[in-house]
Amino acid sequence: MRSIARTWTLVALVVVASGVSAIAAQNDPLEAWNDGAAKRAIIAFVRSTTTQGPSFVPPDERIATFDQDGTLWVEQPVYTQLVFCLDRVPVVVKAKPELAQQEPFKTVLSGNREAIAKLSTHDLETIAVATLSGVTTDEYALAVRGWLDSARDPRWKRPYTELTYLPMTELLNYLRANGYKTYIVTGGGQDFVRVYSQRVYGIPPEQVVGTAAGITFGYDKSGKPVLTKDPKLLLNDNDAGKVQGIHLMIGRQPFAAFGNSTGDRQMLEYTKAGRGARLAMLVLHDDSVREYAYGPARGLPDTKVGTFPQELADQAQRAGWVVISMKGDWKRVFAFEK
Amino acid sequence: MRSIARTWTLVALVVVASGVSAIAAQNDPLEAWNDGAAKRAIIAFVRSTTTQGPSFVPPDERIATFDQDGTLWVEQPVYTQLVFCLDRVPVVVKAKPELAQQEPFKTVLSGNREAIAKLSTHDLETIAVATLSGVTTDEYALAVRGWLDSARDPRWKRPYTELTYLPMTELLNYLRANGYKTYIVTGGGQDFVRVYSQRVYGIPPEQVVGTAAGITFGYDKSGKPVLTKDPKLLLNDNDAGKVQGIHLMIGRQPFAAFGNSTGDRQMLEYTKAGRGARLAMLVLHDDSVREYAYGPARGLPDTKVGTFPQELADQAQRAGWVVISMKGDWKRVFAFEK
Repeated sequence: MRSIARTWTLVALVVVASGVSAIAAQNDPLEAWNDGAAKRAIIAFVRSTTTQGPSFVPPDERIATFDQDGTLWVEQPVYTQLVFCLDRVPVVVKAKPELAQQEPFKTVLSGNREAIAKLSTHDLETIAVATLSGVTTDEYALAVRGWLDSARDPRWKRPYTELTYLPMTELLNYLRANGYKTYIVTGGGQDFVRVYSQRVYGIPPEQVVGTAAGITFGYDKSGKPVLTKDPKLLLNDNDAGKVQGIHLMIGRQPFAAFGNSTGDRQMLEYTKAGRGARLAMLVLHDDSVREYAYGPARGLPDTKVGTFPQELADQAQRAGWVVISMKGDWKRVFAFEK
Repeated sequence: MRSIARTWTLVALVVVASGVSAIAAQNDPLEAWNDGAAKRAIIAFVRSTTTQGPSFVPPDERIATFDQDGTLWVEQPVYTQLVFCLDRVPVVVKAKPELAQQEPFKTVLSGNREAIAKLSTHDLETIAVATLSGVTTDEYALAVRGWLDSARDPRWKRPYTELTYLPMTELLNYLRANGYKTYIVTGGGQDFVRVYSQRVYGIPPEQVVGTAAGITFGYDKSGKPVLTKDPKLLLNDNDAGKVQGIHLMIGRQPFAAFGNSTGDRQMLEYTKAGRGARLAMLVLHDDSVREYAYGPARGLPDTKVGTFPQELADQAQRAGWVVISMKGDWKRVFAFEK
């Protein structure tokens, strides 16, 4: 009886398996991508690293790293976390009323958009330090969660967490379905992104590498451990800092890396420097109708947020990095699009 | 035909499944543990967090952290990494011959064991910085690998990587078999432990949190990215530093934590402070015959390496941490024991 059951199991498994692969062939895992060089590069990379052959990568070494701002979700007109920081200024001023008369807090409280837009990088750093430190990690996560629930992007009138790019979500899923461990490696705050990474990208907190401040370990009145966010930066996860972050928190060279600006350059260089098949891609925002258009590569308007200069485009061409044209390569940009 | 196959599949699966659970019941996953309070605490914790009920923990939140030295492998008479550093002094002196006449290098080169044993903490730090930095991460990994292949522990005449505790290896496997993600959180060097963690403990590099220095990103002559180990400490993964490392690299509070000395105190406090069922355990080295005996808790000899003072034993009792007696709780200490 047992051996008969086993035979039938095998038969059944074969039947089920063929059914599954037939469904897979019908359902394109990268449906939101146009059939072009970018999509083909992704599929070729995954096939060559997951099937037996010279480029095969053992499952436990399959690491893919993704920048977030401008790569997985919208970063224009300003980084989402900066909006959070600006929105948080009143909370900070309430706790420290003397700040109300000090710059740059005074300008932020004025609500004068033009003046706020002109704040210097140093001003923005002052605001970031004031709004991101001095609270416990639990309080901070709660504040981020609450803000994400209520804040709406001014252009699409939607929660910021809906402004993710559908083709990149498909790419994350496709890589994971092929045994890749997907990481976010972001210049944004690690504690910020970890609040929503699982829900929004299917990426758990431990796979988010980001800019991180130190924390102070202490105890509350009941003797329970409390972690407080320090103002002091521990890791600036931009440029070479992304490679430092990858070495520190992952400890392996990625096989695939995705970015969209100069801040991702070293991460892509590091990824491509590894042996065997490696995939490096850059999203170019050249779609002013469906999203934004900025570079200044290829004659696109210049920007301070997510700069993609011609020099980066030239390096991409020399180094065999694939540039993803949002306009040409993406059938749909957002999941909420019809 | 399809539905008949499905029915048979179900039958077969049930048959196979009953077979599996019968085998599981015969094979005790914690065979090297005596049936005592420690073993029972582990099993009760795993059962309550993995079966439906008030203490159930969703699989993606199942995090367990392990100290290494003295918890997973032998740390006496000195930490293994320190032996590596001392053995590496000639290599460093060859590259910088002027060090041969400078202390503490001169003493190390003399081979005078008594004098080496008397080196101060500051001396040892000087040696650590000199032997662990100024090389690329690839060169360093290669050096560690080479050393591990040839070095032998003087007492057991075996590679250091065989001096792991069998009951703890079983515990790692048992937790993983129950959906727990196992991490090493060590005061030892992260780059050191990552070289062998997969092979020795089944723990991949990205699940090793340890003391870490910064790295400098640069390029070699061919323009390829190169990471060089800095002398500057980024994370001192001891005491409160363990909690900082957990927050930085895992971003979740562990449900179980295992240590053996004061350096693990904050990690255990942090773990137990979480809601629901949490397991905190400390290995007490009270077996001078099979391994070593040191405390000074419970009247055991004092030590500078892996101190377990009476105060820690008292805190364990108050806080509901379980003390593992090596002598009483472990049927076997090493896999190589008969």
